[in-house]
Amino acid sequence: MAEKLYIYDTTLRDGSQGEGISLSVEDKIKIAACLDRLGVDYIEGGWPWANPKDMEFFRRAREMTWRQAKLTAFGRTRKPGGRADSDPNLLAIKEAGVKTAALFGKSWDLHVTAALETTLEENLAMIADSVAFLVAAGMEVIYDAEHFFDGFKANPDYALATLKAAAAAGAGWVVLCDTNGGCLPDEVAAIVTRVRQEIQVPLGIHAHNDGDLAVANTLAAVKAGCRQVQGTVNGFGERCGNANLCSVLPNLELKMGYQCLPAGQLSHLTEVSRYVSEIANVVPPGNQPFVGYSAFAHKGGIHVSAVLKASQTYEHISPHLVGNERRILVSDQAGASNLRCKAEELGVELSKEKEQALINGIKEMERRGYQFEGADASLELFLRKTLGEYRRPFEVEYVKTLVEKRPGREATSEAIVKLKVGEQVVHTAAEGNGPVNAMDNALRKALEEVFPVIGRMRLTDYKVRVLDEKDATSARVRVLIESRDGSGSWNTVGVSTNIIEASWEALLDSMEYALLKQSRNLKPN
Amino acid sequence: MAEKLYIYDTTLRDGSQGEGISLSVEDKIKIAACLDRLGVDYIEGGWPWANPKDMEFFRRAREMTWRQAKLTAFGRTRKPGGRADSDPNLLAIKEAGVKTAALFGKSWDLHVTAALETTLEENLAMIADSVAFLVAAGMEVIYDAEHFFDGFKANPDYALATLKAAAAAGAGWVVLCDTNGGCLPDEVAAIVTRVRQEIQVPLGIHAHNDGDLAVANTLAAVKAGCRQVQGTVNGFGERCGNANLCSVLPNLELKMGYQCLPAGQLSHLTEVSRYVSEIANVVPPGNQPFVGYSAFAHKGGIHVSAVLKASQTYEHISPHLVGNERRILVSDQAGASNLRCKAEELGVELSKEKEQALINGIKEMERRGYQFEGADASLELFLRKTLGEYRRPFEVEYVKTLVEKRPGREATSEAIVKLKVGEQVVHTAAEGNGPVNAMDNALRKALEEVFPVIGRMRLTDYKVRVLDEKDATSARVRVLIESRDGSGSWNTVGVSTNIIEASWEALLDSMEYALLKQSRNLKPN
Repeated sequence: MAEKLYIYDTTLRDGSQGEGISLSVEDKIKIAACLDRLGVDYIEGGWPWANPKDMEFFRRAREMTWRQAKLTAFGRTRKPGGRADSDPNLLAIKEAGVKTAALFGKSWDLHVTAALETTLEENLAMIADSVAFLVAAGMEVIYDAEHFFDGFKANPDYALATLKAAAAAGAGWVVLCDTNGGCLPDEVAAIVTRVRQEIQVPLGIHAHNDGDLAVANTLAAVKAGCRQVQGTVNGFGERCGNANLCSVLPNLELKMGYQCLPAGQLSHLTEVSRYVSEIANVVPPGNQPFVGYSAFAHKGGIHVSAVLKASQTYEHISPHLVGNERRILVSDQAGASNLRCKAEELGVELSKEKEQALINGIKEMERRGYQFEGADASLELFLRKTLGEYRRPFEVEYVKTLVEKRPGREATSEAIVKLKVGEQVVHTAAEGNGPVNAMDNALRKALEEVFPVIGRMRLTDYKVRVLDEKDATSARVRVLIESRDGSGSWNTVGVSTNIIEASWEALLDSMEYALLKQSRNLKPN
Repeated sequence: MAEKLYIYDTTLRDGSQGEGISLSVEDKIKIAACLDRLGVDYIEGGWPWANPKDMEFFRRAREMTWRQAKLTAFGRTRKPGGRADSDPNLLAIKEAGVKTAALFGKSWDLHVTAALETTLEENLAMIADSVAFLVAAGMEVIYDAEHFFDGFKANPDYALATLKAAAAAGAGWVVLCDTNGGCLPDEVAAIVTRVRQEIQVPLGIHAHNDGDLAVANTLAAVKAGCRQVQGTVNGFGERCGNANLCSVLPNLELKMGYQCLPAGQLSHLTEVSRYVSEIANVVPPGNQPFVGYSAFAHKGGIHVSAVLKASQTYEHISPHLVGNERRILVSDQAGASNLRCKAEELGVELSKEKEQALINGIKEMERRGYQFEGADASLELFLRKTLGEYRRPFEVEYVKTLVEKRPGREATSEAIVKLKVGEQVVHTAAEGNGPVNAMDNALRKALEEVFPVIGRMRLTDYKVRVLDEKDATSARVRVLIESRDGSGSWNTVGVSTNIIEASWEALLDSMEYALLKQSRNLKPN
């Protein structure tokens, strides 16, 4: 049996400190649910006292059902000279509605005197009081020893004394933090080994990547005896980020033989990595180890022919173990299986040739930047049109948008739409809150005259993704729109170098799908 | 005296195998000259036989003067059953006009039989013949033992025999390659230690990053006795890339006490990293260790106040050692100490009242969706305007954009700009690839008439973030633009429910900042 390690994800707290990363409460809820499905042991939700958004997150989290993960509230030890039972930060943790707390305190004498401006003794009391207060409230307390490694190097006895204070007060875990991220793996291994001789409470590791060694330091700490591993999805985090769980987990499971996630779950890693990037609106680096788009891409001719003969010649692991794929064989797998699934759903029988034609069509669209995983309605329209079994119930003649901006006044936006439904010409215009909203209003106004069902649907989500940022304002953009009516929701996509055109395409698909949906409901199935 | 390590850069060969990286001969010449100025010992220029562009590179390189670096030609051992002295690949190396050759051969028995399809004995002869041929031609030969670590794990005796064949034939260096990038640091350390007992020729290390451990593996190999270090700038390379010299060099010099570059040269590392990214047309990751834009960026208020008291509290090294700089991110959460620091950076004296007014102003902007941490130029303009010490050098009367889309045709976009510079009215229009690009073109055209400096800047990145997705097409969006001129880059932000308005705001700030920057350079400081 592989030995179990406990995985502690701090994407929502430390990860959101990363530059350019800003998560709404809704984003946090989505990411937490995804991490819970993946099977991590702890999810650090935020610092309820320091951040009103985090307070709101914990409120909403109470209404959800969690499979396996323990939701954790973060905070610091009480203030110098204060009391734990009246410290607003500790009270907020106690009232966050979770059973686990992560409490950070100082281990480095320099920080105690220079940053906290208190005495070494008072800092020990702050740690002990704060841990004891939350333990007495019935919580599991994880004590994060901030700057532990730097502190140990400066004053080992004092650094150890801080851990002992936390352990004696009832902490369930003591986590050693390389907060500045500058340690080397050998140092980490030696110091963890030393701590293990002194501390009975199980240990964890929290590494930062300032020296490009967070993954190596984490593995070294586990080898030396740490049993809790902290990190973030994609290594998000302040400065150079935290230990990247997308690299740490496969190394620990596949190379070192530990068990981190429930059996089989590692194969969802690539999906989780991409989902979190998408929500955080961060373009994931293609060369990211294990989960990157290029991680198993073979370019050189020598490599390609060798890989085809024996995959281990140029692959350190099988890509499917982490849910990634090799990219030399033009692998139709995602396309083909989606397609078969969708066709079945639509009750369409696909011949081999039709299937191949559709796969080629989808590939071409994907090459141009379309992404159908998040746009099922656009995929269905594309399939029906390609199979020739469906026509749009109206024809667009044109759409025009005009935006005017004068200083000190809000910009004005209007759209003009001209379309034909059968022989009837509809020509109308509308204003809006921006050009896309104006187009939405104008198209809706035009269609509603003929198709009252359009009045019962509305757009509920609008996302924009710049695909080739380096081309700056002439880059391609992908627009995703979510729409709803009384009975459900659907998603559409548009791609263009022109954001208006991409939005128009997704808007058109959305309304067209509403009409298709209605006509299907009217006919017997 | 620090012990000297020999730095071997393969950005131009292995680095250019990275997905999305394509270097012209001119690009390669520029990068090689930059690496030579930095002070690396070897520059691998390419594989003259396999790639006509590389042949051209070596031709042009002969006309240049190199300070310190030995230019190196890459190639493979002779073909099975062939002769070294008639092997076109070896002859091309001999005729490349350089004094050093890097020759790769097989160490892994699986590769010999499955990929090369020859015998283990013939492979040894191929190595010996090929090395001896180039040594006889008067060249220094570096033997790259491809897949050495995997080979050693599979068949240690054979793997060692391949190294002995190269050494006996006169190789000056034997380089151990983790070609698949899947080794762990402890394995590397143990295997290098073992090889040192068997091989007298000095050893090198060549690591790939598939396990996110290339830097750690390189450091482990050096500690175990390797004295040549191979890698690429920014870790460019096939799949997940090669060992990143921008991380390896500062770790070796600053943390482990070796000498890699001539004294003082490490402080050019950030500049080299950004220059190479620029030439390769790759957006460098902000969170890259040591040299990234965010590597010494402080966001949390606690961190900022501590860093100002004692920089080592949250910095593992002084940023100037690698030519980077500390950046204080102004954010709602961080507050006054961040702002003070920023004002100091700009040479602005702040009274208590002014400071409070600015904090309130920034908080209000952030509440509306602005994010200044990724938009330092907009922040500076905001500070200067709020302090009343600066006015925009032109006045905008209006901007209008018009987009027209007809089915089956590409959308057309144009923008009209009217502005005043002093008494002069400029009224102009331009088309573009989408409305934002059209505004960029029109504004640029209008301003360039009066301010030629605008012609020397360009937009290099454009990001859009929908802030309240649930409001669908009437949601607020935040636009971030990155711009560059010959001397650096800057970032601006705009927010509106109207994407055109938000983009316009960021565009205006960008060009305004270019003018501010220029006027500052003209005045004595």
